[in-house]
Formats: sequence, C-alpha cells, structure tokens
Amino acid sequence: MPSSDSLDLPFDAHAHGRPVVPSRSRWRPLGLDEVTLTGGFWGDLQSLNASTMIDHVEGWLERLGWTGNFDAAAQGRLPLDRQGREFSDSEIYKLLEAMAWETGRTGDVDLDRRLRALAARVAAAQEPDGYISTMFGRSGQRPRWSDLEWGHELYCIGHLVQAGVARARTYGDDEIVRVAVRAADHVCDVFGVDGPQQGVCGHPEIEVALVELYRVTGERRYLDQARLFVERRGHGVLGEIDFGPTYFQDDVPVRDATVLAGHAVRALYLAAAAVDLAVEDDDDELLEAVVGQVRTTLARRTYLTGGMGAHHEGESFGADFELPSDRSYSETCAGIASAMVNHRLLLQTGDALHADAVERVLYNVVATSPAQDGKAFYYTNTLHQRTPGREVAPDEVSPRAASSLRAPFFAVSCCPTNVTRTVASLGAYVASVDDEGVQLHQYAPATVRGDLGDGRVVELEIATSYPDDGRVAVRVLRAPADGWTLTLRVPSWADGARVTGPDGAPSVAAAGYVAVPGPAQGGQVVLDLPVAARWTWGDPRVDAVRGQVAVERGPLVLALESVDLGDDVATAVVSTDAPPVERDGQVLVPVARRDVADASWPFGAERPTAPSDARLVPLVPYHAWAGRGPATMRVWLPVE
Amino acid sequence: MPSSDSLDLPFDAHAHGRPVVPSRSRWRPLGLDEVTLTGGFWGDLQSLNASTMIDHVEGWLERLGWTGNFDAAAQGRLPLDRQGREFSDSEIYKLLEAMAWETGRTGDVDLDRRLRALAARVAAAQEPDGYISTMFGRSGQRPRWSDLEWGHELYCIGHLVQAGVARARTYGDDEIVRVAVRAADHVCDVFGVDGPQQGVCGHPEIEVALVELYRVTGERRYLDQARLFVERRGHGVLGEIDFGPTYFQDDVPVRDATVLAGHAVRALYLAAAAVDLAVEDDDDELLEAVVGQVRTTLARRTYLTGGMGAHHEGESFGADFELPSDRSYSETCAGIASAMVNHRLLLQTGDALHADAVERVLYNVVATSPAQDGKAFYYTNTLHQRTPGREVAPDEVSPRAASSLRAPFFAVSCCPTNVTRTVASLGAYVASVDDEGVQLHQYAPATVRGDLGDGRVVELEIATSYPDDGRVAVRVLRAPADGWTLTLRVPSWADGARVTGPDGAPSVAAAGYVAVPGPAQGGQVVLDLPVAARWTWGDPRVDAVRGQVAVERGPLVLALESVDLGDDVATAVVSTDAPPVERDGQVLVPVARRDVADASWPFGAERPTAPSDARLVPLVPYHAWAGRGPATMRVWLPVE
Repeated sequence: MPSSDSLDLPFDAHAHGRPVVPSRSRWRPLGLDEVTLTGGFWGDLQSLNASTMIDHVEGWLERLGWTGNFDAAAQGRLPLDRQGREFSDSEIYKLLEAMAWETGRTGDVDLDRRLRALAARVAAAQEPDGYISTMFGRSGQRPRWSDLEWGHELYCIGHLVQAGVARARTYGDDEIVRVAVRAADHVCDVFGVDGPQQGVCGHPEIEVALVELYRVTGERRYLDQARLFVERRGHGVLGEIDFGPTYFQDDVPVRDATVLAGHAVRALYLAAAAVDLAVEDDDDELLEAVVGQVRTTLARRTYLTGGMGAHHEGESFGADFELPSDRSYSETCAGIASAMVNHRLLLQTGDALHADAVERVLYNVVATSPAQDGKAFYYTNTLHQRTPGREVAPDEVSPRAASSLRAPFFAVSCCPTNVTRTVASLGAYVASVDDEGVQLHQYAPATVRGDLGDGRVVELEIATSYPDDGRVAVRVLRAPADGWTLTLRVPSWADGARVTGPDGAPSVAAAGYVAVPGPAQGGQVVLDLPVAARWTWGDPRVDAVRGQVAVERGPLVLALESVDLGDDVATAVVSTDAPPVERDGQVLVPVARRDVADASWPFGAERPTAPSDARLVPLVPYHAWAGRGPATMRVWLPVE
Repeated sequence: MPSSDSLDLPFDAHAHGRPVVPSRSRWRPLGLDEVTLTGGFWGDLQSLNASTMIDHVEGWLERLGWTGNFDAAAQGRLPLDRQGREFSDSEIYKLLEAMAWETGRTGDVDLDRRLRALAARVAAAQEPDGYISTMFGRSGQRPRWSDLEWGHELYCIGHLVQAGVARARTYGDDEIVRVAVRAADHVCDVFGVDGPQQGVCGHPEIEVALVELYRVTGERRYLDQARLFVERRGHGVLGEIDFGPTYFQDDVPVRDATVLAGHAVRALYLAAAAVDLAVEDDDDELLEAVVGQVRTTLARRTYLTGGMGAHHEGESFGADFELPSDRSYSETCAGIASAMVNHRLLLQTGDALHADAVERVLYNVVATSPAQDGKAFYYTNTLHQRTPGREVAPDEVSPRAASSLRAPFFAVSCCPTNVTRTVASLGAYVASVDDEGVQLHQYAPATVRGDLGDGRVVELEIATSYPDDGRVAVRVLRAPADGWTLTLRVPSWADGARVTGPDGAPSVAAAGYVAVPGPAQGGQVVLDLPVAARWTWGDPRVDAVRGQVAVERGPLVLALESVDLGDDVATAVVSTDAPPVERDGQVLVPVARRDVADASWPFGAERPTAPSDARLVPLVPYHAWAGRGPATMRVWLPVE
C-alpha cells in the first residue's frame, strides 16, 4: 500500500494501464483496462503467462540467486554472495514490470502480494542516494559507473523505471514506483548537464524508460535526461570495444542514421526512445529520421518472421538483404523491441506498415519463444535448424543463447522475462482511438472500450478465430449518438479482403487501413481476410533465400520439420505448381527428397538436378516448431 | 654465430631446410635447398616476400612496440611499457621463422644479420629457468600459467620453438635455437607428467612445434610432452568459456572426433600435431581419425577457395554444408593451417585429395591475403563483399579482422607474419621422393633435387606458366642409371589431362596421381592440364550457393567485381548456356543486371524473374580481388 511519503502523482498517472502514452499522436493508445483479450491465440498466451510463465521466471530468478542478490546487498553480503551476470538485476525488474501489467490486467491478489514482496526486497538494496545495483560500488566491487560500456548499470535502472511506470499506470503510487523515482533522480543528478558523469550506457534502455517516467510524473528533468543520453550518443562517447562503436550505436547520432545497425536490441531500444523524445519535443526531424531508419530496416534487414539481427557475432543487424536463415539471430528481445518501436511509430504515423510489422513479429518471433507449456524459451529464433540438437533438461541453465530447443533459462536470460512483460501487456497493441473513432490493428477475441473525448465512448466486442479463420466480426456495444468511424487494418498480404457493414453489402478492402462508418449500438462490421496458405518469394537480393520459397498462412510463417518429412530437411525440394493444400486444419505442400551422394569435394561440374517423387507433407506454424522434440527445420524450402 | 654452449644437434638436424620431417612416411618431403622456385606465381610471391613483406611486418612489429616488449622485459620496464595483445610475442617468433626459412632459401646476409639481432633481443627476455613471455609472471602482471584458456603462453612458446626448428633446419645451432630449446625444456618441466601444471593451452600450437623439435633434436621428452598435451585435451581440461569447449577442441578428444569443429585455426593446428604424433608413435588409430576428420571437413566444411571457418563468431567451423559466402570467415591463418595439415597427410597417405586441397588453399586463400605491393593483408577472406567499404590508410592498424580491403596491420595480427613464414617455405609443398622416384604435387617453374637413397639422385627442371597455361614440362637434368619413376598429380578438376613421355605419345591421365617411367638425363615429360575456365556448381545441401554458379580456371577461383560490372554485384545474373569465354587473357561471362524495385517489404507473392540483357563481363582471379580499390564482389553468381 502507498506509504506516508507517497508521491504526488498527477491525476491521470494511472492512464488506464497504457504502457506508452505519448503527449501527442495521430492515434491515441488504449490501455489494459480498455482492451481485454477474451481468448484466442493471444488470450490463451496471456493465460499461460498468468498461470505458468511468470511463476516459472520468478522461480528461476530465485533459484539462481539473482533475486537473492538484493537480499545480499541489504545484508552486506556483497560481493561475496553475488550470483549471475552484470545485468541480472534487470531480470528482476522485468519480472516486476510483468507482474504490474498482469495485476493491472486481472487484479490477481496473490500476484499483487508477490509483487509487493519482491519490490520490498529490491527497495532494501537501494542506497540512500538512490543508486541501485548489486554489481557495482561496494568494497570489492568495481566503482559505480566505471564500466559504462559493459556494466549495464543504467540499463538495469532503466528496467527498474519501466517497472515503476507499469506499477504507477496500473495501480498508482507504490514502493517500486518510489524506488524507481529515487533511482531516476539519482541518474539525473549524476548524468545531468552539470553532473560528474557525462557518458551514456553501453546498452540503451534508460532513455525510453525516462521519457515514460516523465509522462507519468510530469517531471521534465526525466525528459531532459533522456534527451541528453540520446544526443550524447553517436559521437564516440563510449570507450573502444572489439565490436567497434556501431555495436552500441555510438558511431553516428540517431538523428543522422539511415538504417538500424549494430546490436539489434540496443538499436531498437534506442529507436523507441528517439520516437518518444521526438514526440515530446515536437522534434519532427528526429521522428522522420527514425521513421526512415525503420522503413529501411523493414525493407532490407528484417526476416520473414519479423525477426531482426542477422549476426550471432555482436547479436547485430547485418548488411542490407543479408538475412541468413541458418544463422538468423533474431533474438526474442529484438522482436519485442521491434514491436515497441513499430507500435510507437504506428501511433504517430498511422502507417499500416508498422502494425503489419507488429503482427508479424508477435506471431512469429515473440510467440515462438515460449514452449507450449510455458516453461522453456527460445533466445534466438533461427529460420533453419541444420542439426536436431538435444533437449535441454528442465533443471538446466543453457549456457548458450543459440540452443536448438527451447531452454528453461539462460546464463544471459533477458528473453524469458521480456516475454512475460510483453505478453502481460499485449492488449495495448490491439486498438487505438482518435476524436473520430476507433482503430483496430490486431485481431483477436476481445472487448475494446475507446474514449473518443468529450464523453463520446465506443465499446466493441470482437469475435474471431483469427488467424485460423479470416473472419473478424466487430459488434458495437456502445456508440456515440453523433456517429463515429471504425478503422480496420488490412494486412499487406490480404489481397482480396472484404469488409461488410451493417447494411450487409461487402466491399473490397485494400491493404492498409479501411475506414467505415461506425454502426450504432447493436450494429456489426465484418472483416474477411483471405488467410489461405500462400507461397512467398524473396527479393532477389536476399541471397539466403534464392531458389527457395516460404509458405505463409494469414500472419503465420510456416515451417517444414524433419519429424513431418521423415528425413532431414536438408534434402527437401518443394513443388510450387499449385497452391499449398489445406486439409483438416493442416497446410500441406508437395515435397520430394533429393538423393545426395557424398563426394570427397562438394563442388563440381555437374549442376544439381531436381527429384520427382513429391508427396504431400504437412507444415507447422513456425511459432510451434520443435514442439515435438529435436528436429531439423526450414522456413525457406528449396524449389525445383 | 653459435656460441660456446652450443647444442649437440644430431648430424642431420639441418635436413635440407625441410619444415616437416616425419620419421616415417609414404613419401619423403624435400627441403628448401632441394626445391627452388625459379619464377612464376609462387616464385614471384617469394620475391615479394623477400623484398617487401618481411620488411613490412618487421617494421610494423617494431613500430607498434611488440618487438620492444622484449627489450622492456630485459630492462625491467614491464608491465608498464607493454604494447599489444596477449599473443603479440608470437608475431615476433613467426617473423623469426620467416627470416630463418628465407635466409636458408637465399643466404641473404643482411636478413641473417637482422634475424640474429632480433633473436638476441628475444634471448635477453628469457628468464633463467627458460620461461619466456612479455605478458605474464612479473610483478603487476598475472602469474605464469594463470590463464591457460586465453593467455596464449604455450601458444607463443610453440611459435618460438617453430622459429628455432626453422633456424636449426636451415643453419644449425644458433641463439634462437637455444632459446627455443630452453623454453621447451621449461615447458616439459612444468607441464610434464609429474609437473605442477597438468593443463593445455587454449590455442593449440605448442604440440606441433614440440614434435618437430623432437625430430630436430632426437630428444624424446618433447615428443612425450606433445603427446601429453594432445591426449589431455578434449576432456574438459580447460575452464568454461562463453564459446563453449568446442571452441578450443576441449569437448572431445582428437582421437574420437569425426570432423573438425570450433575455432578453425585451433582445430587445424591440433590436427597437424595429431598427424605428427601418430606418425612418430606408429599410432595408426590416431592417424586414421585425423584422416577421417579432414576428409569430412573437405567434403562438408570447406569453401570453394579451400578456406575454412564459416562463422565470425568464434572464428569457427559451421555445421556440415553451412558455408555462407558473405560471412565466410576463412581466416588466412586457417588456410595456412589447412595447407600444413594436408601436406602432412599427403606425405602419409599419398592421396591426391590432400595435394588438391593444398593447391586450392594456397592459390585462393593464402595468396589472396597479401596485396599486390605486399604491404597490406586480408585477415578474413569473404566470398561475397556486399558493400565496397573503405580503403585502410597505409599507417592504420585495422581494429577489425573483417576489413573490406586489405589492411597494413591488425590489432590481432596473426595473419601477416603467418603469410611470410609460409611463403618463405613454399618450396616444401612442391615435391617429394620415395625409394622409386620423385612425386610432383604443385606445378611451378622450379628445380627439384630428389635423393632417392643409396646415392640415387634425380634432378629436374620444371618449365611452366601454370596456372595461366596448363602445360608443365619436366626436364630431367640427372637420373639414376637403373631407372626411376616420375609421379605427377592430376588435379581433380583436370578432366582430359594428358601426359606425354619421352617417346612423344600422349596418354590420358586420370585425376589423382599418374606414374610414368622416369626418363634418362635430358629426357622430358610433359603434362597438359585443361585449365580452361569452367562452371562450378555446389552440392544442393550447400544452401548458400543455391541458384548460383562459380567460375574456376585451373586451380583458380574467379570472382566478379563491381568495378568490372559497372554496378553493384547484388543485381548480377549470369547465363550458363555456353562455357565461359576466354579472350586476351581474360575470362568473361554473360551477365545481365536485374532491375530491382525497392519495396517496403522484401517478401511477397511474386516470384523473381530473370533479366535478359546479358553482356560479357570479365572476372578476376579471386586472389587478386579488391586490387583496384573498394568494390562489391561475388564468387558465386546467381543464375537465371
């Protein structure tokens, strides 16, 4: 409960549980008490998050002693008893953020109790001046801020601040909010324009957190500090590292960059912060810069799955069109960060490209990470698994990010906690409002309440089994008497989509957004999206997919697994003479297996020929791959 | 000059300047005073090495203070004045080895003086007990052997020992030989079966050096120590590192491995040592293990260029058939190490596969590294350059191994010194002997003197402009009266090769080795190899080359550069309807340029179609690429 030294939060700090609340935007976001996922793919994942994933993560953080680091700090047992890597504090903060969104969403009393207990342990480790880290600053540890390149101190505090923001937005003043505010104040004292430290963090994250804390509290110094961090970066302010300055976006100011480069998560968190900053500062030049970077990144540096990061080395973007399937890094966290950036840009630009990107990455990267039982996760998301690999034991911490199967936890375990906070707050991606009406961006069984302003409220009930089926029925539960507009996204792949208004006359809806007059209460609009399985080809400059084809169904990328082929997918050749077959809820494609002869040298004068004995083989949604144990897998299938 | 405490070297320590002298072998190696390259591709490169590359490397090592580290050690100025990375000592040792082979080859008096001066500076830094390192063991430095995983102490001493071996083999007893012997003795004291240290070095190298030092000195403890190192490895004897134990071949004993894996240079140096050890120990099981590993590696994990190492991350081998062109690491040092291993296996097995591999990697990796002026080097050797990159300034140390253009020197500069020692000793790869006759493995203008034993000597003069032309004329200057056999390698690509004996009747020679009766003095044998440019296709499991074709001419891999295409090679499409055209010493292929439209998303329903406006565009030998400034480049060309 709020204690006596409670914050003086502005009246609207709660903001209906909206994760991102820009001061101005073309479309205004909705929050977790305005959009309720009532089932379906995402609602089920939220339920799994609530029942299992959050518990799983909480248990592992306890078991590995990363949570205990805070107790050790409070009890003076550091550095002796410290466990985990330099950024382990951030996992506890991301868990707190997940708990905050989840309690805000469901009012789960037990989870609220656990959140408070965890927050108290964190609070006990905070220094009197507001500094907090279990890794730095004590006798026997390195001094505070002595390793901005790799130390992750500001990164961790950024996640603490995001936890505080989530709690403030879903509950109000509370201990973790105050811990976050004190830490943010300390950061401003130390890193402000006259502060003793004039650097930035090697891993962007504090920036996006500080802008949102400004939005919660109205305290301009947080915004000013975020601006300082963003503007300092890109001028070689960080020390030299083996990966070079591009790794942490210190080679060129974000304002001058033309495409995202370097470590993907770092680049995307920084881009998210730059959008927020541009919005608050009315800095259209900065906003346009990020829009251009993201457009180019989507056009040239993004996997079919929406994943980002083509190099294992440096966990970084590759060059334009360099998108190797078998070395796809496509970190789950980068997928989450892409959703964050594209959500922010969607609110500003109204460009369906960004909503398409959010949908693609949520279904095909974020949803791919957790196992069906919610107790194991992918860190990287390859598009081509060459060797079946091995099952990771339920009690095993995977030392390597690139496991062939989902692992219960990792030595570097940023992704599982990131998934939990993202899934708990998924509702925020579904819809937005403006003065005229409601925009629907993502399709799921849900209820939506949109406040258009001036007391004009729209309430909707969305019924759909999308993406299994393409029909989305939007029923109007409440509508303003003076009319309103319903705006529906038509994904770029949905050639032949139709929208049917209350009058029952269907009309073709082109890709992008289609606006229809909002029906009165009791009325209904139906959107029909052609989700049938389709062949997808790559730009000829994407060398990695040359001579190959992918299969998509609606927003889902599909994959061929060896367990369905009955053989290593390395030898598969697919025939594209006819469209993929849909039968009994499965997608099947004709696949032949190539006879390969092992030669002493794999290059020679003979051009490979195609096999002919194709048979229909089922594909699986990419997000479900490796659900039946070790397998080899391909998203891109060789063609004849 | 040898000092009074000279070693008691066996009579045949000199061994005609042979780098590798196995105690038993199917074919016996020849040395640098038995094979003289008299011009042509390799002779010219040796001249460039003598005139420029060795000087260049020597100058840079001095300028960067890496040589000065030894002076600082002798003068008690360490660690304060230390420069360079933890392995920088090894560069001085590799330079000493290069100088030793080069003075042995040419008798260059000035270089001999420089070698002695450099050796004296090294000798002054050796501790009384034989230990030598400028990085460890002093007050203010980490203790000796405290970081076997990354410290490279044994690795450096390994290169010192190889320098000592080279000097012993080309000169005899000398200061650097004695420094090497003392260091090796110290290693045996410390790491022997009863020694205080029971580990191995994170980077194999000491093993191959110790076996050869045994071969020079006859001292069995060096062989025993090499065996200990090889047998200890693979059982998790090294500490945990982020890359995992495969990185330094500590996951599985070399005897049990089925394919080379992990860091490519490490894996190959270890394999070379394992061959040597197997030979000395009559350990056929171990020899067969390495033969199998290398055969599989050539069949599945080697680039068309002969390069090895498919991952930048960990500088490591990839999975079977994972050979991305654009992320080819193919480190120059791994190319050198592959030549070392395949040379050793060739001498044991007589399998032309290994001589083919040596030829391929020498022309297309080792020769690719140095610039035409000998003053810049490639560290990695990509098969696909996506961006032109920038010129590295003549005074610039490249911090990154993967520069788009050759760089004068690197922060990690293993490759330039490795190239100098390899080029200086190239003659050793050309020919071998057995009791029956002479085997020619590599074709270059050269003289060869082969001692068959029992006073039977063959002397040959080889005239050829190979690989420009396919004719190799072997003239007999001296031959035993009782007959002998001339064995010639026919490369695997040389379909239709012909050999013409003294009687003038040509006969078809199949790939592999062809043995002909050795002519008497004055006689001649001519080998005609069909070097005409040809299309080369990849095994369909090599995803990275799907829908693409390469062009080879003789042993040379060719490449398309943007400077010849007049456009980025990303849009090139080649037509293979007719063989490549040869005109005025150039190879030309019909290339069309694809019109590419920039879309907001690079994947869609439309299958790319082929362009039709092909015109003939010249290719360059891959080893010469980027010789005309920044360019994009492809070895594998998309086909229609």
